[in-house]
Amino acid sequence: MYSHSTQIRVRYGETDQMGYVYYGHYALYYEVGRVEAIRSMGLTYRDLEEQGILMPVVRLEAKYIQPARYDDLLTISTVIDTLPDRFIVFLVEIRNENNEVLNKAKVTLCFRDAESGNQIRTPLSITEKLKPYFS
Amino acid sequence: MYSHSTQIRVRYGETDQMGYVYYGHYALYYEVGRVEAIRSMGLTYRDLEEQGILMPVVRLEAKYIQPARYDDLLTISTVIDTLPDRFIVFLVEIRNENNEVLNKAKVTLCFRDAESGNQIRTPLSITEKLKPYFS
Amino acid sequence: MYSHSTQIRVRYGETDQMGYVYYGHYALYYEVGRVEAIRSMGLTYRDLEEQGILMPVVRLEAKYIQPARYDDLLTISTVIDTLPDRFIVFLVEIRNENNEVLNKAKVTLCFRDAESGNQIRTPLSITEKLKPYFS
Amino acid sequence: MYSHSTQIRVRYGETDQMGYVYYGHYALYYEVGRVEAIRSMGLTYRDLEEQGILMPVVRLEAKYIQPARYDDLLTISTVIDTLPDRFIVFLVEIRNENNEVLNKAKVTLCFRDAESGNQIRTPLSITEKLKPYFS
Repeated sequence: MYSHSTQIRVRYGETDQMGYVYYGHYALYYEVGRVEAIRSMGLTYRDLEEQGILMPVVRLEAKYIQPARYDDLLTISTVIDTLPDRFIVFLVEIRNENNEVLNKAKVTLCFRDAESGNQIRTPLSITEKLKPYFS
Repeated sequence: MYSHSTQIRVRYGETDQMGYVYYGHYALYYEVGRVEAIRSMGLTYRDLEEQGILMPVVRLEAKYIQPARYDDLLTISTVIDTLPDRFIVFLVEIRNENNEVLNKAKVTLCFRDAESGNQIRTPLSITEKLKPYFS
Repeated sequence: MYSHSTQIRVRYGETDQMGYVYYGHYALYYEVGRVEAIRSMGLTYRDLEEQGILMPVVRLEAKYIQPARYDDLLTISTVIDTLPDRFIVFLVEIRNENNEVLNKAKVTLCFRDAESGNQIRTPLSITEKLKPYFS
Repeated sequence: MYSHSTQIRVRYGETDQMGYVYYGHYALYYEVGRVEAIRSMGLTYRDLEEQGILMPVVRLEAKYIQPARYDDLLTISTVIDTLPDRFIVFLVEIRNENNEVLNKAKVTLCFRDAESGNQIRTPLSITEKLKPYFS
């Protein structure tokens, strides 16, 4: 299991007139969570993309438990609990400053060769970094 | 079963550098789908909110089958296949101009009293409009 | 002078907790205005881009006169009042259903060759369409 | 003159298919800049709003000099160079890691009483914090 935490602060433009973070904007928070998780492995998604590897999201499941609100300092915990093969799955949990769980999500991505557009297996650069956490 | 279709055109600002619609922006498309479905019943979400009823999203499941792209004219089909009670579920299917299914989602919302914040049952104004479709 | 009008409806996710459309989202409305203005000339921005021409925004001036609100049906009027050369300028005015002016903007874009990245003059395909309106 | 700097990293969802940060998303960066500038004075915009003061943007002027790109770590410098009265003006400059200026903006906001909706002068809580920087 590989896990990583990062923090973000809710922006005004991410709220809606209910005073909640709009449900679509959590996608950005999950993105920050997984991008920083990848960076903590010593890789960057930017580099992967420059090497011709795209990582589109193929599936998203999200539970909105309590609303995140303007200016909240959120902790985004991101877990990879299965060594990725054809897909990579990120489990995300978002907490506020009182450590209340506001949101949980499961985000599944695949890997594509940028040139051919074909789906490929998880690149070795990623699996090599992750293997030590799964033995 | 109640169903409704509406169309939207993909905006440039909704694409990302992969040339795909960013996965979080589909939330806006699902929103347009259900808001127009509600309007087609003779109600508006704006009126519901002015009557003190909020409809936050509590659950989202989305499958990204093929990317939507810039300037695509998308057809968003929204179906309510169960008479809502404590929750209302919208099943969404997004197709491009070639009638290819790009995206499928299930969006679950609850109803809240704006003043108390308490969850309430589906307002009668909605169930009365929907009942004829479920007998 | 070339002018074109189009309509859009404000989405919930475009509001903020003030109950106003967030000031950054007007950029999307200006985009819809100019993209539809270009389409009304018989061109599409998508085609221009496929021909290797990019149109980044280089300057934006916006006046927020009155807030646009959720579910408002907005009329976006877009005017080109100078034949474009190194830059193309779109003058935008956004009105609500009561014909009140909510927002005015001036958006300046340039043209870039996608491959070299160099700035280029306005493509002939555009100036040829516009010339009849400026004589 | 009051000045403050903060950093943000460009999110994937903020890019568009040109590979640039979409021009509308800079509004979020300017917002982060001014919100953190206010926080550095010992105030928060959240508190102001809870005291019944709204701060809508009334005018925006932005120059897009060079594109910000995915994963760039941006430095947002925010300056207040005039003691605010009926309006507060934030001058923003955004630089990348090579200290290149990517974007400059001038954002003008007013203050409104949340209840009456009327425009008010800059609250004393703000002018008291700023005065020492303008003598």
